[in-house]
Amino acid sequence: MSIIQTDKEPWKAPDNVGHVIPCDYEHKKPLKFDNGQAIQEFNIRYETYGKLNKDHSNAILICHALSGDHHCAGYHEGETKPGWWDNMIGPGKPIDTSRFYVICPNCLGGCQGTTGPSSINPQTGKPYNQDFPRVTIGDMVRAQKILLDHLGITHIHAAVGGSMGGMQVMQWMIDYTEMVGRVLILASTARQSTQSIAFNEVGRSAIHQDPNWNKGDYDPDKGPDTGLAIARMMAHITYLSNRGLESKFGRDRKQKTQNLTDVEFEVESYLRHQGQTFVNRFDANTYLLFTKALDTFDLYGQKDDLRHAFQNVTARILAIGFISDWLFPPEENREIIQSLLKLGKNASYAELESELGHDSFLLETKEYFDLVRAFLD
Amino acid sequence: MSIIQTDKEPWKAPDNVGHVIPCDYEHKKPLKFDNGQAIQEFNIRYETYGKLNKDHSNAILICHALSGDHHCAGYHEGETKPGWWDNMIGPGKPIDTSRFYVICPNCLGGCQGTTGPSSINPQTGKPYNQDFPRVTIGDMVRAQKILLDHLGITHIHAAVGGSMGGMQVMQWMIDYTEMVGRVLILASTARQSTQSIAFNEVGRSAIHQDPNWNKGDYDPDKGPDTGLAIARMMAHITYLSNRGLESKFGRDRKQKTQNLTDVEFEVESYLRHQGQTFVNRFDANTYLLFTKALDTFDLYGQKDDLRHAFQNVTARILAIGFISDWLFPPEENREIIQSLLKLGKNASYAELESELGHDSFLLETKEYFDLVRAFLD
Repeated sequence: MSIIQTDKEPWKAPDNVGHVIPCDYEHKKPLKFDNGQAIQEFNIRYETYGKLNKDHSNAILICHALSGDHHCAGYHEGETKPGWWDNMIGPGKPIDTSRFYVICPNCLGGCQGTTGPSSINPQTGKPYNQDFPRVTIGDMVRAQKILLDHLGITHIHAAVGGSMGGMQVMQWMIDYTEMVGRVLILASTARQSTQSIAFNEVGRSAIHQDPNWNKGDYDPDKGPDTGLAIARMMAHITYLSNRGLESKFGRDRKQKTQNLTDVEFEVESYLRHQGQTFVNRFDANTYLLFTKALDTFDLYGQKDDLRHAFQNVTARILAIGFISDWLFPPEENREIIQSLLKLGKNASYAELESELGHDSFLLETKEYFDLVRAFLD
Repeated sequence: MSIIQTDKEPWKAPDNVGHVIPCDYEHKKPLKFDNGQAIQEFNIRYETYGKLNKDHSNAILICHALSGDHHCAGYHEGETKPGWWDNMIGPGKPIDTSRFYVICPNCLGGCQGTTGPSSINPQTGKPYNQDFPRVTIGDMVRAQKILLDHLGITHIHAAVGGSMGGMQVMQWMIDYTEMVGRVLILASTARQSTQSIAFNEVGRSAIHQDPNWNKGDYDPDKGPDTGLAIARMMAHITYLSNRGLESKFGRDRKQKTQNLTDVEFEVESYLRHQGQTFVNRFDANTYLLFTKALDTFDLYGQKDDLRHAFQNVTARILAIGFISDWLFPPEENREIIQSLLKLGKNASYAELESELGHDSFLLETKEYFDLVRAFLD
């Protein structure tokens, strides 16, 4: 295990993957969920960058976090901001699209193109909403496997994911052991902590107590936006750190006001903006579904030990924890690797300095990027 | 400065102060607030325990936290649970009512008897609601000073407060320097952090986006209970610690359910209960007022230095920080004392182990209680 301190030197990103068009795979067969329910067909939206080589050995699977999606690099038509991980993925970048074929699917249960609660249920002609089966991390991975089968990919060079994406890549190395060469786990956990469950429950309560919630049976244009925005504002604080917030906003005032509901501090303005922009791109039922998938994720299980889950793993694993991450703190990442090492697996752990909190896995520093590059090499 | 580790031995509390009746002092003169506004009269509700001695030298002032009140010891008629700090205050207890005359007022702007937003504005015959002037920690202290004048108390043996109460006792030692002999600051801060402002803003947003909010002009029986409950659920997490939550609830299930809005984990049930009981005893406008009083509290000021605020302080000061408190973390308490020591003041700092987070200042351990007792002696 190594401890690596980053300097603050920004990483100069080479060019990006350019104009990208999302793809859809419509799977016309039933998908069975961990809870026994099934849907009769589903669509999975995804993006790919780079080219699959002749022996199909250069695929990298990217698994996104709670609020992420399949659009992690390049630009869609008309966009001015690239995908969410464009600093990491592209030609010459740590996840190098001139060498690797990168696939990023939108998660099952999502709201960005893959079938989820807001999709039309072909049996009723209406959105699934609360009739959508409860999704687990295992279900997400099962749907991704179906996509990879369709793409003719039988071997993944590496599965890479941060946060909820980290849970998915762990599930991959357990459920499809033989298929995964390398697993890169970033700012994740093998078991959602009590505090994280607690925060998610506040967010869920804000949603289902919104008058527009209507027991989940809302019109797409008239959802529980207020509750969802509050959930996001709160969650956003947990993605950052006290020190990061101090550096960025301190106690700077937006305006002088005597009105108790006005924005007063800059950090308040920032949070409200985060809440508002989130509701424009996210569905409340998906938010409930994904937070429950996180909360019920527990590789320790009844025996309170990771060794049972990890016993058959064959992949090389690197986990990276970030010092200021208090949502999925370094020790939870370290424990994953310690358990793998006890089983004699090829695993290593790195801990990086950063003041960005949980969101550090999206940061740009030379040390972090060199580490990812070297691990994939 | 000393670092003290507590063992886990529970403190056996002696008898309590028994049956107590709250008192009211109606001040029939105007009170001017820091923001220039005024109210024409106000009531301050308080409790006292013990007896004021002949030379009026044994008074201890207790300042309560955000959700606290004047009822900190003994029992009201019919109560089965005592006041919120009954383990600390009573005959033979660290704040020993057989020696000291203890006064605990409900804060100005509160909702437990002291004039606040839910009180009737004599000029309109209706509740002040949003017309109540914005309150600062300084305003709270000014109102307390008026009460002490009324009670004939010109010297305070000690002012004691945790969290928002800690801010008040610091304000006391600054604004009424000559009057205060000792100051005991528990789990507090000289300046609200950006992260704490951020969490408070989420709570405020939950309240003012509740349909019952009505711009603060709600009927007492039909307030924004949903928003207030959500605010409380979230805030409650910040009063605890991840480790404490793990110990208490872990991932224990309340019930098996597929419904995404049902209570599933024990911690969810606990939080919902916290939210619901809070709305039965607290007013949303007071919540907004008090969180803003916290957020705008800043003894560092423009010069980003505590020395200016503390230069005239004459009291003996002890601050206690708690290791697992991430809301008002140990370092923020330590900084208060460091600044006082640089000015040559009689100040000391102790840091205690506990897994109870911010709420640790309400804990019962022998070391903590011995420390408080010795400081007051």
